[in-house]
Amino acid sequence: MHLAETTWTDAEKDADVALLPVGSTEQHGPHAPLGTDTLAAEAVAARGADAYDGEAVVAPAVPVGVSEEHRHFAGTLWVSPDTFRAYVRETVESLAHHGWDRVVVVNGHGGNVDALREVAARLTRDGVAYTAPFTWFDAVDTDLGMGHAGPMETSLLLATRPELVREGRLEEAAAGGAARWGEWEAGVNLAYDSAEFSGNGVVGDPREASEQQGAALLDAAGEGLAALMGVVVDREWEQKGE
Amino acid sequence: MHLAETTWTDAEKDADVALLPVGSTEQHGPHAPLGTDTLAAEAVAARGADAYDGEAVVAPAVPVGVSEEHRHFAGTLWVSPDTFRAYVRETVESLAHHGWDRVVVVNGHGGNVDALREVAARLTRDGVAYTAPFTWFDAVDTDLGMGHAGPMETSLLLATRPELVREGRLEEAAAGGAARWGEWEAGVNLAYDSAEFSGNGVVGDPREASEQQGAALLDAAGEGLAALMGVVVDREWEQKGE
Amino acid sequence: MHLAETTWTDAEKDADVALLPVGSTEQHGPHAPLGTDTLAAEAVAARGADAYDGEAVVAPAVPVGVSEEHRHFAGTLWVSPDTFRAYVRETVESLAHHGWDRVVVVNGHGGNVDALREVAARLTRDGVAYTAPFTWFDAVDTDLGMGHAGPMETSLLLATRPELVREGRLEEAAAGGAARWGEWEAGVNLAYDSAEFSGNGVVGDPREASEQQGAALLDAAGEGLAALMGVVVDREWEQKGE
Amino acid sequence: MHLAETTWTDAEKDADVALLPVGSTEQHGPHAPLGTDTLAAEAVAARGADAYDGEAVVAPAVPVGVSEEHRHFAGTLWVSPDTFRAYVRETVESLAHHGWDRVVVVNGHGGNVDALREVAARLTRDGVAYTAPFTWFDAVDTDLGMGHAGPMETSLLLATRPELVREGRLEEAAAGGAARWGEWEAGVNLAYDSAEFSGNGVVGDPREASEQQGAALLDAAGEGLAALMGVVVDREWEQKGE
Amino acid sequence: MHLAETTWTDAEKDADVALLPVGSTEQHGPHAPLGTDTLAAEAVAARGADAYDGEAVVAPAVPVGVSEEHRHFAGTLWVSPDTFRAYVRETVESLAHHGWDRVVVVNGHGGNVDALREVAARLTRDGVAYTAPFTWFDAVDTDLGMGHAGPMETSLLLATRPELVREGRLEEAAAGGAARWGEWEAGVNLAYDSAEFSGNGVVGDPREASEQQGAALLDAAGEGLAALMGVVVDREWEQKGE
Amino acid sequence: MHLAETTWTDAEKDADVALLPVGSTEQHGPHAPLGTDTLAAEAVAARGADAYDGEAVVAPAVPVGVSEEHRHFAGTLWVSPDTFRAYVRETVESLAHHGWDRVVVVNGHGGNVDALREVAARLTRDGVAYTAPFTWFDAVDTDLGMGHAGPMETSLLLATRPELVREGRLEEAAAGGAARWGEWEAGVNLAYDSAEFSGNGVVGDPREASEQQGAALLDAAGEGLAALMGVVVDREWEQKGE
Repeated sequence: MHLAETTWTDAEKDADVALLPVGSTEQHGPHAPLGTDTLAAEAVAARGADAYDGEAVVAPAVPVGVSEEHRHFAGTLWVSPDTFRAYVRETVESLAHHGWDRVVVVNGHGGNVDALREVAARLTRDGVAYTAPFTWFDAVDTDLGMGHAGPMETSLLLATRPELVREGRLEEAAAGGAARWGEWEAGVNLAYDSAEFSGNGVVGDPREASEQQGAALLDAAGEGLAALMGVVVDREWEQKGE
Repeated sequence: MHLAETTWTDAEKDADVALLPVGSTEQHGPHAPLGTDTLAAEAVAARGADAYDGEAVVAPAVPVGVSEEHRHFAGTLWVSPDTFRAYVRETVESLAHHGWDRVVVVNGHGGNVDALREVAARLTRDGVAYTAPFTWFDAVDTDLGMGHAGPMETSLLLATRPELVREGRLEEAAAGGAARWGEWEAGVNLAYDSAEFSGNGVVGDPREASEQQGAALLDAAGEGLAALMGVVVDREWEQKGE
Repeated sequence: MHLAETTWTDAEKDADVALLPVGSTEQHGPHAPLGTDTLAAEAVAARGADAYDGEAVVAPAVPVGVSEEHRHFAGTLWVSPDTFRAYVRETVESLAHHGWDRVVVVNGHGGNVDALREVAARLTRDGVAYTAPFTWFDAVDTDLGMGHAGPMETSLLLATRPELVREGRLEEAAAGGAARWGEWEAGVNLAYDSAEFSGNGVVGDPREASEQQGAALLDAAGEGLAALMGVVVDREWEQKGE
Repeated sequence: MHLAETTWTDAEKDADVALLPVGSTEQHGPHAPLGTDTLAAEAVAARGADAYDGEAVVAPAVPVGVSEEHRHFAGTLWVSPDTFRAYVRETVESLAHHGWDRVVVVNGHGGNVDALREVAARLTRDGVAYTAPFTWFDAVDTDLGMGHAGPMETSLLLATRPELVREGRLEEAAAGGAARWGEWEAGVNLAYDSAEFSGNGVVGDPREASEQQGAALLDAAGEGLAALMGVVVDREWEQKGE
Repeated sequence: MHLAETTWTDAEKDADVALLPVGSTEQHGPHAPLGTDTLAAEAVAARGADAYDGEAVVAPAVPVGVSEEHRHFAGTLWVSPDTFRAYVRETVESLAHHGWDRVVVVNGHGGNVDALREVAARLTRDGVAYTAPFTWFDAVDTDLGMGHAGPMETSLLLATRPELVREGRLEEAAAGGAARWGEWEAGVNLAYDSAEFSGNGVVGDPREASEQQGAALLDAAGEGLAALMGVVVDREWEQKGE
Repeated sequence: MHLAETTWTDAEKDADVALLPVGSTEQHGPHAPLGTDTLAAEAVAARGADAYDGEAVVAPAVPVGVSEEHRHFAGTLWVSPDTFRAYVRETVESLAHHGWDRVVVVNGHGGNVDALREVAARLTRDGVAYTAPFTWFDAVDTDLGMGHAGPMETSLLLATRPELVREGRLEEAAAGGAARWGEWEAGVNLAYDSAEFSGNGVVGDPREASEQQGAALLDAAGEGLAALMGVVVDREWEQKGE
């Protein structure tokens, strides 16, 4: 049940878990759209809701996240971690207000991970909603590299929104990108911005992507999400009165 | 140019104004979807961008706004005015970071109006971006009543997303709704929540809606928006250095 | 019962509603004092308390409000909407602490309206006090124009504090002012500051003002306020335990 | 020059220092009004402005301060220290915006002292305005005790607003009050609220008050303030550009 | 029982009061270390815990406080009063979470006093913990002057950490210091920074210090603290449920 | 150069990098002290400063961090991530104020990692200081397991503060602990608190610890830190004017 398309009278029926897709609007190289992470979060959330054995509410996706590290590339939008946490928190609070107090945040962007973990802990400990932050590319087992706008993300796009992948630019994307996420020393990543190490924003080789692999990733992520939804619903935890 | 579907390399070309659609996810009676305001904001923004004589950037829509007044109806989502202002502000700051310092916020929800006026004033005075908050139903001249989920909004949906209007429920919507927005005394509205005066959340009679009138509203709103975009671009105002 | 002049022992007697006057210190042209809005709020609150059939507590006036739009004119003072809301909220919280949980904010400044609506909603929904934001010039029915330092405000001053109106400057005030509140396009006011459209800060023609009309405005506003106080006291609503 | 009564055109003339009176609305026993501290701040500010050899701007008084310690007594109003500091800070910022960057805060309430010192330091170090927090009863040399609603405050009222002193209740005030401000141990005051140690809120014996002594206190405080204004104006310090 | 060196299993035994030492890292002239205030707070807290007739928990010291006034001297560290209050407040909240709801903050720095009084009042009134802010040099009766890095502080160091006093620089310290804490007018200290009146940061003559006097100060402060702990434990006050 | 023990006059000499140790006060099973993480951070910082080929400033350790997940065990202290970030940020700002604009935060607690990454990015992007968050156990290559109060931490304590390890309780520690950090599903850790999966707070088997291994860990961590310090000092980056 996608909230945006449902009436309130239909939303009243029982659902035992809510999904909140969270993406970002940020550079994904010359070949993939700025909305890649939001599209991925929405696609995985829809797939997870289908695969789940029960009724799930799907909220509209949060479209702008913690993406300041890509700000040197045109069109990248971002909010501060504080504002992002507040926006996610209050959206989950309103879901919980309607009794949907088991929530999985379905995330498509690495830069959101730390902030989501923090806000999900807060919501859970405060007794608002038991909230689990799921990131699709951390839930799948694959030989494909993640990188940024790399094989995994490009594959997922090819399987879900192929018209948005500029295939004629894949060579250029690979040539102008970086092999890894910047310089490391003693376990510390020294770069704070992707422009420090990647000329066109890409990390990894998107030419390794394929629609077939994308379909497999979507299946795996959707199944992982559905399994998580089941565990979240069964988790011992109680909402505190408002 | 819709940012979500564009690559950063294509986003680099000149655009002289940016549009930020802002909606909400909130009850719109038994006949219209919770996403009505977001859908309206997106549709009007797209129409305005088409009608505008120049290049415009369209950001992804902010999907949850200041809608606490509808919280008694299932599925309504909301954030506080503070968080809403912060989210809008920082999104506009990132648009301005890329040089798009003329911004029209294209709004679809009455409850957002005050907060948008406040944050747009702040952004403009701070020298971030000259920001104008446009609300589509305040820009059109019509005999249709606004209400809530009433003739105007229902018409716009019929013209843009007719499959989302539950036409079989229009009688019920009209019968269970209210004629006006609560009780007033000495210029003061005494109600803080729509459930105080409307049984099903509707205000006004959605049976007066039609696709034809919706098309006319969309045209008028789009033209109004395009005219505003022109004035905003020509306005004397200068961005301050970061 | 004006709190500032009352002892705590006398303040203990029953009152069923509290008034909080809220003004501003901002330019009102060459002929009217910077304190115009505060003086108006105090005068209307006093008149309303007299007209009210019951006992009312009148708090001291909040003297500085949301007036940044007049900052180009000497002597204008302002605070941010956030600070204004916090100051009003906490003052109302302390009124409610003493059991005065029906509060009318009596406002004299247009720039305060949105912020007051927001904070009054919050106080009411939080169960602190049922709080209604009353703005005197929105409560009266008159042919006089509002503008800024125009016929209505100048009339009210002539009826309450005539010595503060510089009548010898009325010609100059009218000549250097503006006919309306800046430029509009598609329902959007493009100006954020009064200096953008008025050379001396005046909007409207203060020469149309008269003491007689001011007396009528004061009567009408006081009666409207008293009527509102009655409705506020009777409103179904309950304070939540601290 | 009292801002509230001045026009902006008259406020433009040169003044070299601004005064911001700061009071509170809080219990002052059965004999003195809740507005005692605000009245004192206003009276001393007016006297200081008169005594000062130069032009001074006097802002309207901040009427509600840090008075939570008196909340057990009816009519006491208070805001948090954070909100109080913000309100004072932003009011001083707007004074400084007009070039009045030498500011003396003229305080009438002991509970405001710490918060004023903090905000004045911030304003000064930030280059907004050189700001000095003056508290009238710390500026005079007298044998009268301060207490609360005691000899000093009652004397000042008798000299400035005698009609507000309920002289018939002085015996009761003295009998029901406390000799000192609660219990101390190792330099620490153990009480956080005046109700812990005073039955009627009074500390000290207001029967020792007299109009004559009040007049002397007013003279002394006004002269001290005028001397401070001179030093503040001469202080080496520079405003930073906005 | 010093928390830092205790296991949680041993921390479970009954203690009826907790001590939170609070210091600062700031210049103390050429002869005394930047950590002087933290060292003093720790030494006095340990002595007080020993002298106290009961079990006390001693938390680790907060090492950086409100010391911006010394920022012109190398190595001085500081946080804002807001952040300092938040850090102290939340640390006390966690002490109270374990049932230690009688807390004495043992302070070694004058610049922390106002902020500690504010946060201790808040914690006490909110029902978190009855919290008393103790400042060691306000608790002792001595003829030695306080100043800054003066006789009292230098004596305490000589009695507790003599190796950290650069005795060879005492002449220089005295010669380059100030006799008192800046200029005063009408009860107002005009200086916001120690560099305005002291060339090397010292106030007072540290040559008057001695180990013997330091030992006496430590005894007196420890006894004062122990007495306060007793009063704090016996104070009528109740924690509110979380 | 440890700031706490240095005078400001000695702190003035050139240092090209500053270290800020950050620990926590939280349960470490029945055998290790609550201060384990702070002690580790201090020991590693000291070792790194020694190993570094240049002059380093070492600030006093932040003793309480983001440890709410251990709150079910007595003596655990914690602050919110917001307050922790503010405290670290402002301490680094004051280091940078003195010209030490290359800072390594030396961290001993896993729960601090996300918050430190966020604040270090902010400080670096804002031009305050190039700030790198180093966590000692992520910098060493070892076969020992990390867990919590497990082999690595216990070894480090045995090598640095052996008297604080209760060796007689190692059997009990191992028996009552957990093998791993709670339940995982689809890449998501379902536990928010250590008490959900460990009876005595231990994760891993501390009996595998030894002083020898601790000495090796300390060497490796110190060398890693020193290497990082070199890279941080050489990093191309510029402080922005205050």
